[in-house]
Amino acid sequence: MKAAQYLGNKSFSIVAGSTVAPASDEVRLAVDFVGICGTDMHIYHGVMDARVNPPATIGHELSATVAEVGSNVSDFAVGDRVVVRPLDYCGDCPACHEGHSHVCHNLKFMGIDTPGAFQNSWTVKARTLHKLPDCVPQQIGALVEPLAVACHDISRSRLQSGERAVVIGGGPIGQLIALVAKAKGAEVLLSEVNPARRQFAQDNGIDSVDPTATDIKAYVDQWSQGKGADVVFEVSGVQPALDVMTQIAAVRGRICMVAIHPQSPQVDLFQFFWKELEMMGARVYQPQDFEQAIELIATGQLELSPFISSVNPLEEIQQAFAGMDNNPSGMKALIQCQPSVA
Amino acid sequence: MKAAQYLGNKSFSIVAGSTVAPASDEVRLAVDFVGICGTDMHIYHGVMDARVNPPATIGHELSATVAEVGSNVSDFAVGDRVVVRPLDYCGDCPACHEGHSHVCHNLKFMGIDTPGAFQNSWTVKARTLHKLPDCVPQQIGALVEPLAVACHDISRSRLQSGERAVVIGGGPIGQLIALVAKAKGAEVLLSEVNPARRQFAQDNGIDSVDPTATDIKAYVDQWSQGKGADVVFEVSGVQPALDVMTQIAAVRGRICMVAIHPQSPQVDLFQFFWKELEMMGARVYQPQDFEQAIELIATGQLELSPFISSVNPLEEIQQAFAGMDNNPSGMKALIQCQPSVA
Ligand SMILES: [Zn+2]
Ligand SMILES: [Zn+2]
Ligand SMILES: [Zn+2]
Ligand SMILES: [Zn+2]
Repeated sequence: MKAAQYLGNKSFSIVAGSTVAPASDEVRLAVDFVGICGTDMHIYHGVMDARVNPPATIGHELSATVAEVGSNVSDFAVGDRVVVRPLDYCGDCPACHEGHSHVCHNLKFMGIDTPGAFQNSWTVKARTLHKLPDCVPQQIGALVEPLAVACHDISRSRLQSGERAVVIGGGPIGQLIALVAKAKGAEVLLSEVNPARRQFAQDNGIDSVDPTATDIKAYVDQWSQGKGADVVFEVSGVQPALDVMTQIAAVRGRICMVAIHPQSPQVDLFQFFWKELEMMGARVYQPQDFEQAIELIATGQLELSPFISSVNPLEEIQQAFAGMDNNPSGMKALIQCQPSVA
Repeated sequence: MKAAQYLGNKSFSIVAGSTVAPASDEVRLAVDFVGICGTDMHIYHGVMDARVNPPATIGHELSATVAEVGSNVSDFAVGDRVVVRPLDYCGDCPACHEGHSHVCHNLKFMGIDTPGAFQNSWTVKARTLHKLPDCVPQQIGALVEPLAVACHDISRSRLQSGERAVVIGGGPIGQLIALVAKAKGAEVLLSEVNPARRQFAQDNGIDSVDPTATDIKAYVDQWSQGKGADVVFEVSGVQPALDVMTQIAAVRGRICMVAIHPQSPQVDLFQFFWKELEMMGARVYQPQDFEQAIELIATGQLELSPFISSVNPLEEIQQAFAGMDNNPSGMKALIQCQPSVA
């Protein structure tokens, strides 16, 4: 059994490990494909070393096959194809008691706060698993986790069919939000500065606009016949997006805050008052977001194969991370963690 | 017929006017009592001259008696005791079409954008009126408008019985929000720096705390057994309140933005993401907020007479404004616009 270890300072090594037998409520997985997330790239750049505590095995966007089940696990059997909802919650804090365990006060994000999936074998709690239908290939299965993020964002925003949504930021999550919004029946516009990402959106049927070349406020006014956007998704993490989000939102518009803004940036609260805007933060996902993500793929409503930019074996994880670093228009690099998968 | 005119630069004059006969959809009112609002104080200080365009008759918190009805008005009769919802909307913008006429794109606020109530006689559209039950005295009737603001804020926040609410800022609106929240069955805490305003809250059965003397975050943590506040009402308009509101809100807590922050202040958006907070702006009121305000008074759930700090005749409007300016703990000064009212 092999595992990748992040060592700090943009470097990984492959080490020999031993498989971990599942406890009674656990399942041992043969990991198939693991995607590289923006968060993994942050870790790679060293900015999360205090939290990750290298050497550490990271990775949290995966498909896997059940290899061994604990004595109390009845919902899963050896050979089941699954994805992991990588959240380890305490079950006993005010958030957990109110049914919000995904934002548990003591939440451990698996693959960041605890060991992750960039290895051949991973042992996890059975409660983290969702089954993949036969029609969903394992490579696509590794995209369920980021798609569940997008489903959660859409759910938080209360987006309805027929509404107009503007997505600010066209990285993988922004693109997925745009696709889920469109699948929901919304009219969608993506604002993105990178031309390759705009092209990617267009290729997937999403209209896009360059906010450095176009007056977004005027554009959205015209697009919406003066109403403004019913929903704005802020996925970019930059101040100009915060400045524009309150301008383009309709009266009673909703702003879904997906991006992480660590520095307490400036927000036009006057517009919140004047237009009775709403803003809702969105973090990770709930079980139903995973179920919805799997269903959107299984029913053919979303075709995610264009998101796969590259596939490398576990031994090439170092090159895969370096490749993503040099390819801002690449969407999702996958690491193949079994020697061969059908 | 007499009218007060704001002349600019903290000064009023009383001028002779003539009554305006009602158009077919209008009603002419004999104005009884008019409250002085924080917005009126802003006008008095000259900061809204560009919008008000003095000389101008202002005033929008009133009780009145119907004196004459237009030919198409069937819901009101001479002698009816009423209050005015002082919003003049266009009826034909995207907000009006969606049922949000109170935040109409072309909203005129009566008493600011158009002539107001500080006069003996005022002619308004019948659609702005709500009837006062016999049990509500005319002086208390003048408090319906600010109470409707508080009812709207509570409605926007989706506050439920049993939830914990923190109100930041103990001016008239903050105090009224606290009382409506308590009447709704919430546990309420008011944060206010002014000791007289804290005492006013205590006298009305609202717990209060001094944020300059107490660590509000620690206080709310203990008060809520580590959960945080389900709802925070920001009514103060100052940066320290913005800093604390995101700290004290529970996971999935709601922040109702009542205050006006003109300068795009700093907001801890990381907490919005991390705790999945929500923020909703709240502006003026809808018809149902007036109905609820009247019902809260009529059923004896709220006793508002302590809010009346002073009553002066129209001829003393100048002294009344000056008095409010020198009395930050005063809640509501009323102007009596008829020579005598039973
Ligand atoms: Zn991720
Ligand atoms: Zn918990
Ligand atoms: Zn007012
Ligand atoms: Zn309108």
